[in-house]
Amino acid sequence: MPVFEIEKYFDRLWPICRSITGNGLRDSLNVIQELIPLQLREVPTGTKVFDWTIPKEWNIKDAYIIMPDGNKICDFKVNNLHVVNYSIPVNKELEYDELTKHLHYIDSMPEAIPYVTSYYKENWGFCISYKEFKKLPKTGIYKVVIESSLQAGSLTYGEYILKGETDEEVLFSTYLCHPSMANNELSGPLVQAFLYQKIASLTKRKYTYRFLFAPETIGVVAYLYENGMHLKQKLKAGYVLTCCGDDANFIYKQSKHVNSIADEIAKHVLKHQDVPYEIIPFSVGGSDERQYCSPGFNLPVGSLTRSMYQKYKEYHTSLDNKNFISFEAMKKTIETYFLFVKALELNNYYKAEIEYCEPQLGKRGLYPSSVNPDVSRKLIHDRMHLLSFADGKLSLIEIAELKNIPVFDLEQHVLLLQEEGLLKRDV
Amino acid sequence: MPVFEIEKYFDRLWPICRSITGNGLRDSLNVIQELIPLQLREVPTGTKVFDWTIPKEWNIKDAYIIMPDGNKICDFKVNNLHVVNYSIPVNKELEYDELTKHLHYIDSMPEAIPYVTSYYKENWGFCISYKEFKKLPKTGIYKVVIESSLQAGSLTYGEYILKGETDEEVLFSTYLCHPSMANNELSGPLVQAFLYQKIASLTKRKYTYRFLFAPETIGVVAYLYENGMHLKQKLKAGYVLTCCGDDANFIYKQSKHVNSIADEIAKHVLKHQDVPYEIIPFSVGGSDERQYCSPGFNLPVGSLTRSMYQKYKEYHTSLDNKNFISFEAMKKTIETYFLFVKALELNNYYKAEIEYCEPQLGKRGLYPSSVNPDVSRKLIHDRMHLLSFADGKLSLIEIAELKNIPVFDLEQHVLLLQEEGLLKRDV
Amino acid sequence: MPVFEIEKYFDRLWPICRSITGNGLRDSLNVIQELIPLQLREVPTGTKVFDWTIPKEWNIKDAYIIMPDGNKICDFKVNNLHVVNYSIPVNKELEYDELTKHLHYIDSMPEAIPYVTSYYKENWGFCISYKEFKKLPKTGIYKVVIESSLQAGSLTYGEYILKGETDEEVLFSTYLCHPSMANNELSGPLVQAFLYQKIASLTKRKYTYRFLFAPETIGVVAYLYENGMHLKQKLKAGYVLTCCGDDANFIYKQSKHVNSIADEIAKHVLKHQDVPYEIIPFSVGGSDERQYCSPGFNLPVGSLTRSMYQKYKEYHTSLDNKNFISFEAMKKTIETYFLFVKALELNNYYKAEIEYCEPQLGKRGLYPSSVNPDVSRKLIHDRMHLLSFADGKLSLIEIAELKNIPVFDLEQHVLLLQEEGLLKRDV
Repeated sequence: MPVFEIEKYFDRLWPICRSITGNGLRDSLNVIQELIPLQLREVPTGTKVFDWTIPKEWNIKDAYIIMPDGNKICDFKVNNLHVVNYSIPVNKELEYDELTKHLHYIDSMPEAIPYVTSYYKENWGFCISYKEFKKLPKTGIYKVVIESSLQAGSLTYGEYILKGETDEEVLFSTYLCHPSMANNELSGPLVQAFLYQKIASLTKRKYTYRFLFAPETIGVVAYLYENGMHLKQKLKAGYVLTCCGDDANFIYKQSKHVNSIADEIAKHVLKHQDVPYEIIPFSVGGSDERQYCSPGFNLPVGSLTRSMYQKYKEYHTSLDNKNFISFEAMKKTIETYFLFVKALELNNYYKAEIEYCEPQLGKRGLYPSSVNPDVSRKLIHDRMHLLSFADGKLSLIEIAELKNIPVFDLEQHVLLLQEEGLLKRDV
Repeated sequence: MPVFEIEKYFDRLWPICRSITGNGLRDSLNVIQELIPLQLREVPTGTKVFDWTIPKEWNIKDAYIIMPDGNKICDFKVNNLHVVNYSIPVNKELEYDELTKHLHYIDSMPEAIPYVTSYYKENWGFCISYKEFKKLPKTGIYKVVIESSLQAGSLTYGEYILKGETDEEVLFSTYLCHPSMANNELSGPLVQAFLYQKIASLTKRKYTYRFLFAPETIGVVAYLYENGMHLKQKLKAGYVLTCCGDDANFIYKQSKHVNSIADEIAKHVLKHQDVPYEIIPFSVGGSDERQYCSPGFNLPVGSLTRSMYQKYKEYHTSLDNKNFISFEAMKKTIETYFLFVKALELNNYYKAEIEYCEPQLGKRGLYPSSVNPDVSRKLIHDRMHLLSFADGKLSLIEIAELKNIPVFDLEQHVLLLQEEGLLKRDV
Repeated sequence: MPVFEIEKYFDRLWPICRSITGNGLRDSLNVIQELIPLQLREVPTGTKVFDWTIPKEWNIKDAYIIMPDGNKICDFKVNNLHVVNYSIPVNKELEYDELTKHLHYIDSMPEAIPYVTSYYKENWGFCISYKEFKKLPKTGIYKVVIESSLQAGSLTYGEYILKGETDEEVLFSTYLCHPSMANNELSGPLVQAFLYQKIASLTKRKYTYRFLFAPETIGVVAYLYENGMHLKQKLKAGYVLTCCGDDANFIYKQSKHVNSIADEIAKHVLKHQDVPYEIIPFSVGGSDERQYCSPGFNLPVGSLTRSMYQKYKEYHTSLDNKNFISFEAMKKTIETYFLFVKALELNNYYKAEIEYCEPQLGKRGLYPSSVNPDVSRKLIHDRMHLLSFADGKLSLIEIAELKNIPVFDLEQHVLLLQEEGLLKRDV
């Protein structure tokens, strides 16, 4: 997975005006389908999903303001953030005072166009940088045009299930409803699509992997309406992929149950990487984990992010763009999530075949040797540690943590000792 | 509850010579009855209560020493600490050497008259400041007079039960057997009486509240002999009120079981007040919690104090007087105990009515708004936090602690969300 | 137990060439029998014990190298470390290049003769200081002589069981297979033998004590093959005695189950001694606890050491000699282990006879008094603390720890209060 591949897909997805419904969302899913064979589903407008109802489908062709001097500003075709997402169609002339009731800007960030939505309350509006806003003449007639439509249609999401040896599942969930922004949110879908490719390349998988690309909140509510009870039965661990594309330190947000295996895996992997990171508790200020962890489901779903929603000033503005992110960092995010997968796959319960006293490794030629005596010492110590603690009650990660080593260090010993008949998986 | 009201009752109770039995105790309970409708009980001399026996009743009219020069010292009518509490009657002449066997003073505190008792061993004595003691002439004849009586009678205590919706109980227990001392011990009875008035003014009470004013140790032993098994069934939380009248920082002494709800409430309330405090474990160096927490009962009874028994030099001397205490501080103690009550009353288990995914607050107009965006953000975050964690398994305090906020911040949301049909109490 | 007695036995044991089998081991056990009435057992060569087989018995008379100039080096009679332990017999002439394939030295420690064994792979070799090694001429003919024998025989161990009131057991296990080295390993057997004498002198013992002197690893594997299931039923606590003879700080290595009573006792005793110490978790880099704590047995066996195996540079060399150790320190190790025993014997469950409220100590004359008021205060506080927490659910050590005092401080109160009928042992 070369970095330029990620960038190529980023560049293709960037200009599309996405929303929680509509053709921008569908077009984006079609691009993602080149990387992962998603099945697309359509949920019709008006469908009740728990406490929510699928809204009308929104599509947009153009939007702009004509200034009194005839110049065009807030041009949707220049930046799709200029129009309030889900704006109703409008075409009228008005004066400065009325216009400004529909303008959004951030006076503390004069260069930034804010990102504003109005999904559930019919309204229209434009987003403008404060710098441009200040220049607007207070007299004269403005013309506003929004060529949008809001009508019965459907909400689209894409899903792919990669089968494993068992029907226990691992979920990766991301959203694709934001228009042109980079960390939040093209990083999530891109990381998830390329992560899929790495997982698909594994020759053996214990778990079945589920990949969901849906609009935030309403999309996941709709998804859980259909799949929530199944996940409650089968989900071993899950992660929401969002805000994971810049080079800030990793932040892992835990699921509601702090001892979930999803969290244990994440903490273990991050602890043994040589980069700083932070672990934070579940909270409702977040993304789709709010739905997955709602009281009725309470699924073991956490989230590994970098610069997190609401915590960086470029969040939900036009400044969250290609300059803000790093494709190298995105690659590292993919690799870290892939280590989660590898740790999950490795994390079984094992039992020493020779339970009473130590096995005699010497007679089997199982004393590892290396030209470097420190390496030999670690190898033999890890091997004996595994045999000593493999009692069927401790998971492999728990055994690794007792020695403060990554579970990956034990992998070669698990394989060899199973071959030699000294260790067995306990199921 | 104005501060001068507390002071008024302090001034009336101050001069009365109390003991573990007798008319001083009865008179003091009569004063307290103006604040709380106590029922008085009399336990006859000789009654066996567990390992103890109610002693003879002690009353005293006067006590003094006539010096060889005819001057009167150690005058009971000037300060009732001058006579050893429970002294037998005496009226005789004696010399300095014999007299001094019956004198108590503290050489390291030359101004202080110590407080000494001899409840269970018949004896007599006087307490004198070291400064006065040093002046006593070593020759000549002294006359000692103690006009006391020690005879069959009874021990008195006062109790009031304030009914609530359930028969689960909260106990407040204090003692009223100390003669003229202020922090230990007029602060306890005064705080408890005024706390009663605040609790009685609540329009709704989940718990039944029990208020006990009894002599220390023997009074509580007698009380538990009659009520201990009932309390073992019904007591949710209890507190011993003592040493809570000066302006030192709060000290909360835990019950024996560190996870009792009494302790959880106290720790939560203190943590979210903006004043320093200390939490200490249960220990036997204390007051009536020793009886409540004895192995057979092991009740969830803690104690919130300020300058604690045995830990301040004025303790059990004439220097523990009105100068030592602060009525403002006493008022703050009352308010803090009242917060315990409010937290107890609030601390229910709640369940979100919409369990699966989040409820759509927008369509119900439940997004709180304030002109201050920080206030709005906190309000919405608290509300969603409550809905997210209301699974019927976490208490409201546990939910508040997960967000490190006081439970009182959740009260408005509990009320509103119940009204809106989004939350129900789980019983 | 005077220190010179320990030294006397050290001096007698020092020159004997021990191994995991053979007459050196038997002779050493015979010396130890003067201190503890060990029963000796012989396990024949070829016996299968779990994954291991008892090897041939090894005995040796002499070993040396004749240099090209006729001088003798690596003389076994000067230092028995010169010959690789378990070397097969050899008597031949060879050149420098072939000889050096059989020489062991440590270039970073030019004065030290290393300790090398080859129990399970037939081989021969000599150990030499690097300083001597450097002097060997590279030309000329060397003669090597090892007068050893390797033939069917048996492995010897010694055991003594000191009966107590119950059949619950405490195990002390040490090994006696190392030739002339001091901290590792004459300290273990010496400490264990003298510890036996202290335990045997107790007039009353709740536990039965088992003392094992066996060769390391294979000896304990053989022992567990015969006694492991019995120990799994009966063992309350056990300790491996090794590396406990120098004056480094104590290190206590826990058993695998961190909450075993063996560990609780050790931590409690060490915490209340006024010397620095360290507590470390179980690990497989160790001694016979590896067998005791193997997954099938998982016995509560820890180990109190001073300079620990593999952690000091003199380890397994001729520099681990009498200069390295301290007989005073060894005595202190014995005393500390003896405190473990005393704590184990004391650590019962007690119940207050008067459960409801406090007993009235005054009427029984049970208020302790001392001329020193601080002493009195501690005595009464300890006594009441014991009565208050003696609920049959807390062990005496847990009760002591709640007051952060050594369990030994409670002993006098336990005895007195039992006599007075205020406390009973709860079984």
